[in-house]
Amino acid sequence: MRHLIFAAALALACSMTPGSSRAADPDRGHAADRAEIQDLQARYLFALDWQDADAYAATFTEDGVLDWAGGIVHGRDAIRREVQGMRAAFEKREAGDAPTRPARLRHFISNVVLDFDGDHAIGRAYWFELNDDNRNRWPYVSGYGHYEDELRRVDGKWLFTRRKIYNEILPDRTAGPTNPVTTRH
Amino acid sequence: MRHLIFAAALALACSMTPGSSRAADPDRGHAADRAEIQDLQARYLFALDWQDADAYAATFTEDGVLDWAGGIVHGRDAIRREVQGMRAAFEKREAGDAPTRPARLRHFISNVVLDFDGDHAIGRAYWFELNDDNRNRWPYVSGYGHYEDELRRVDGKWLFTRRKIYNEILPDRTAGPTNPVTTRH
Amino acid sequence: MRHLIFAAALALACSMTPGSSRAADPDRGHAADRAEIQDLQARYLFALDWQDADAYAATFTEDGVLDWAGGIVHGRDAIRREVQGMRAAFEKREAGDAPTRPARLRHFISNVVLDFDGDHAIGRAYWFELNDDNRNRWPYVSGYGHYEDELRRVDGKWLFTRRKIYNEILPDRTAGPTNPVTTRH
Repeated sequence: MRHLIFAAALALACSMTPGSSRAADPDRGHAADRAEIQDLQARYLFALDWQDADAYAATFTEDGVLDWAGGIVHGRDAIRREVQGMRAAFEKREAGDAPTRPARLRHFISNVVLDFDGDHAIGRAYWFELNDDNRNRWPYVSGYGHYEDELRRVDGKWLFTRRKIYNEILPDRTAGPTNPVTTRH
Repeated sequence: MRHLIFAAALALACSMTPGSSRAADPDRGHAADRAEIQDLQARYLFALDWQDADAYAATFTEDGVLDWAGGIVHGRDAIRREVQGMRAAFEKREAGDAPTRPARLRHFISNVVLDFDGDHAIGRAYWFELNDDNRNRWPYVSGYGHYEDELRRVDGKWLFTRRKIYNEILPDRTAGPTNPVTTRH
Repeated sequence: MRHLIFAAALALACSMTPGSSRAADPDRGHAADRAEIQDLQARYLFALDWQDADAYAATFTEDGVLDWAGGIVHGRDAIRREVQGMRAAFEKREAGDAPTRPARLRHFISNVVLDFDGDHAIGRAYWFELNDDNRNRWPYVSGYGHYEDELRRVDGKWLFTRRKIYNEILPDRTAGPTNPVTTRH
């Protein structure tokens, strides 16, 4: 209902703007949606890198699906447990005479493309990661790839309904040959 | 309620604005423009890295200019052909006992600064690239630099009219000594 | 005029939405604020990397505080002088048979999370840096970490009131074990 009203208001605004070319420009008016999704994308990464399972799971819908190197995980509760399980993998440290401080794996997002259809959105973005899990705690690029996301606006809040993570350092998770972004005409 | 007041206040601010503080804050109201340009910037990079010549060319105006390491290219049609030509360079692989999967060159954008003047905009941003064109398909940073862009809103859609790509690994494409972003006062 | 119509339409949409779920979605309506802060974040980095002390200091309030590896600096004037002092450190080059062009240190921001409370905001984000201060001018990752920012809107313009820079390559500036982003419920 709220979207209907918003759409009506937007239509009114457009109709009162002679010569408006909004028809050619479907994202016009989606600035608020983009701002919220960028915030969500960023919160996801803080949660991942600090292994904050609750905050990570909270970026998915109840029925959200995470498709990553570890498998396909269905539902927010299972995703929460998945992150708890990740911790062991993320926290591996060198045995023996290891550095005195823990290594820090950090993931970065960039190149966010969004297409909207009402309360649904399709997202595409790049990611890469830095790590320093070596004797000298020296940073290096330890992986990169892209995200293919589906999002839904639930109770006014954008959440992931599906996130598939492509990863170029894993032969079975690399991108296909076709641009995952569909060109709009 | 707070939003209603905000909207009303915004309406009031606009209607009363001869001497509004917008003068001190020229981007206020440009959230939609920024959202669209960030989307454009991201689509450009997906098109580049997947060598999608049509999608790449579609980010430029008909008379758009691309100024990159390969030369200065004038017009959307020539830019499309340029990307078709890039493919050969991007797809070079190791001869002989090469890895079984192709290398993946990926470009990332960050630090986007935008200044607007009606349907024209000046953009500044950083870029860097990752590559894994080596025996072990191990990622590394293979270049970085910045963009100096001019954009125009054509039929309601932001497009590049000129993109100049500075590249710190090429001695003749490095940045000058002066901050390419003009400070607003 | 266009802004007035949009604001009026927005006011209409809000006023007709008794059961709006905006309460669950505090960032709704903050698209303009986010756009401005992203622009500010980017201008900060251009100013830093080109050692533009005036532009750098202009991203802070008069009473702004910079908390970085070099110490805690209070006030815009002191911050300006701090950047003038950084120049010496940033411009160090190899002695003897150094490359003919200066090295280029570049900082990138990503993963921006923002929480608003009126004219105040809390920001969290990641950063990393690339450098090529070696014989071959070959790029590499030379540092990474995160920002913890406080911002205030002064005369309609968002500025940093405090920026604390965490840096994973400095043992006394690394992040703590707890997610610096507070989950919203």
